[in-house]
Amino acid sequence: MTPDLPDLPGLEPLQPLSVAGRIDRLRTALAAVESDDGHPDGLLVTTAANIRWLTGFTGSAGVLVVTGDRALLTSDGRYRTQADEQLAASGAAGDVGVRIGGVSTQREALAEAAGDAGVLGLEAADVTWAALESWRTVFAPRSMVPTHGVVEALRMVKDDGEVARMARAAAIADAALGSVLALLADAGAGRGDELSEARFAAALDHAMRVLGAEDRAFETIVASGENSAKPHARPGARVLRPGDPVVVDFGATFDGYRSDMTRTFCLGGAPTGELATVFDVVAASQAAGVASVAPGVSAGDVDSVCRDVIAAAGWAERFEHGTGHGVGLDIHEGPSVGSGSTAILEVGTVVTVEPGVYLPAIGGVRIEDTLVVTRSGSRPLTRFPKEVAV
Amino acid sequence: MTPDLPDLPGLEPLQPLSVAGRIDRLRTALAAVESDDGHPDGLLVTTAANIRWLTGFTGSAGVLVVTGDRALLTSDGRYRTQADEQLAASGAAGDVGVRIGGVSTQREALAEAAGDAGVLGLEAADVTWAALESWRTVFAPRSMVPTHGVVEALRMVKDDGEVARMARAAAIADAALGSVLALLADAGAGRGDELSEARFAAALDHAMRVLGAEDRAFETIVASGENSAKPHARPGARVLRPGDPVVVDFGATFDGYRSDMTRTFCLGGAPTGELATVFDVVAASQAAGVASVAPGVSAGDVDSVCRDVIAAAGWAERFEHGTGHGVGLDIHEGPSVGSGSTAILEVGTVVTVEPGVYLPAIGGVRIEDTLVVTRSGSRPLTRFPKEVAV
Repeated sequence: MTPDLPDLPGLEPLQPLSVAGRIDRLRTALAAVESDDGHPDGLLVTTAANIRWLTGFTGSAGVLVVTGDRALLTSDGRYRTQADEQLAASGAAGDVGVRIGGVSTQREALAEAAGDAGVLGLEAADVTWAALESWRTVFAPRSMVPTHGVVEALRMVKDDGEVARMARAAAIADAALGSVLALLADAGAGRGDELSEARFAAALDHAMRVLGAEDRAFETIVASGENSAKPHARPGARVLRPGDPVVVDFGATFDGYRSDMTRTFCLGGAPTGELATVFDVVAASQAAGVASVAPGVSAGDVDSVCRDVIAAAGWAERFEHGTGHGVGLDIHEGPSVGSGSTAILEVGTVVTVEPGVYLPAIGGVRIEDTLVVTRSGSRPLTRFPKEVAV
Repeated sequence: MTPDLPDLPGLEPLQPLSVAGRIDRLRTALAAVESDDGHPDGLLVTTAANIRWLTGFTGSAGVLVVTGDRALLTSDGRYRTQADEQLAASGAAGDVGVRIGGVSTQREALAEAAGDAGVLGLEAADVTWAALESWRTVFAPRSMVPTHGVVEALRMVKDDGEVARMARAAAIADAALGSVLALLADAGAGRGDELSEARFAAALDHAMRVLGAEDRAFETIVASGENSAKPHARPGARVLRPGDPVVVDFGATFDGYRSDMTRTFCLGGAPTGELATVFDVVAASQAAGVASVAPGVSAGDVDSVCRDVIAAAGWAERFEHGTGHGVGLDIHEGPSVGSGSTAILEVGTVVTVEPGVYLPAIGGVRIEDTLVVTRSGSRPLTRFPKEVAV
């Protein structure tokens, strides 16, 4: 059950993540939020990834209230030790208090910590209607206002510690794909047992964990033959055959941070006919998109660069999705890289570039890397070779 | 990467699931829902598992509106073929219309399908504040009211097709654990490579998928040594050693339905001292709880039966969680089996019975089965032996 896999090359231990200063950046951002009742005097943070980013706390249950002069994290008894340890390790302990207890204890503590904040923001994309009614009671008579993506906007630019974790996740994913590539080669040569999409996905997921991933970054896509023409196919019972195009879209999670990479292989040798042209066009589109990533560029322009190459080949309608998205603690986060995206790339932003062309009768090809924006352009975190024939 | 694993014994192909009649049962249930504006005339179903249960549709994006005389499912272009095929296969196609399109097309179709329903229920535990504002606009000038667990209450009693899928999931999980038990035996004997909690969890997850699971049912727990005393530990780098108690809490997903089982092993031989007593007490508690499950019994009484055995041993405070929960399309669903649970078990209800005792200096033991309530009592779906020494 534990196959021999290659060691990861040259991976040094990582420095602990520091979250110092993030709470103050949130306070500054809140002062710019508009609502019908004016700027919120505080924010109730309920989104787990936002709590993690602001404090270092990774528990499955927690709520954070941040006002102008206070920040308090509450959780239940399971996380008593963990909360203290993680806030000390992240450097948040000086800024963020902790209160552990049952539901009523936590609610009283949150209301008390909200102090004289008269207008409190909630994260509207996270708080359910049922929770909203409950929070109104907890914080009465304060005014509750919806906020949209306040912490998420701060999370778009990654610091060195975050990029190091995403690079590690990407390196694990690269090594994992390398370790199972022989399965594809066997399928391409018609050797060995039948290999289904689901079985290959399971092998790849297992290899990532054996190599040190805490988990896959999302549900791995392995789409072969006619399935490769469906951008959102789920791996199934279809058996991989010589000549198949096979889209492999996957990533690893390391210390909470994710990677995202797609390679499309052709089993048994180089593609021929129209499929060969699809491979060439998508490769050219992706290379052009990667080359366009730089600080000051709009995400929409990266999308246009990729789209223009594919349109010039006559397949504008066959590139059915956006060019990419931000990656970090979530697999899909800001900025969106699509038609009309106005976000301006900054040094430290991490985005994917993943154009594709999908021809129902021929097959589909998608190529994707995760890139971090640097002063001079970008650096790929995912580094697996782009050779097609396997 | 694909080890030899045993074939599953005697598993016949499953009949397709039928959802016929479920929409009408929802209509009946809605007539009993109270709100400030009276009974809802319809329900907007946004919870994915509820949509799946009512229609058979499994896409990641979909909304279902049900009124007294209409039911309409909307989704986007990715799911055009799948929605038609799945509703035809489930028998829902006669009752539920389908409209595929972009966001505005879907919204117009939903509003039109709501017809003259003046009061429309939303699923308050699923709809976010941001979505609520959007739905108010879509359905204006109708009154929107929060509803709580209407479809979930119907889902508690499983039909034969659902139970067959959960039995299959449980059989896969049983076989998977059997296939990797040698790893624990090696660790117990001090043989072979070091085996960490994370590595064993990865091997178990992989075995489930190789044996036909579409996925694990939830994040597998492997908690060894001192970690076994933490009911919600996540598998980490700790290496398994002879003498360790090891809590293994895991399940498989098959055709959407889940299983849930916990076994606690003692590596290298039978436990000794106080740990041996913990094993005995938890086993007695779990056996008594299982024996108490029958139609007409309250879930709270099952909890009491388990709790009394542990309290008699002096460890009432060391059984820190509820006795169990319903399982189905979700890993945690109704009924809750805890102190004060008033739900009455019915034939076809599927619940877990999983008492545990956690002693920080000694270790923790939890034993869990997933049971379906039958006319004469219950039948375990999870059937792995409860031998402790490995």
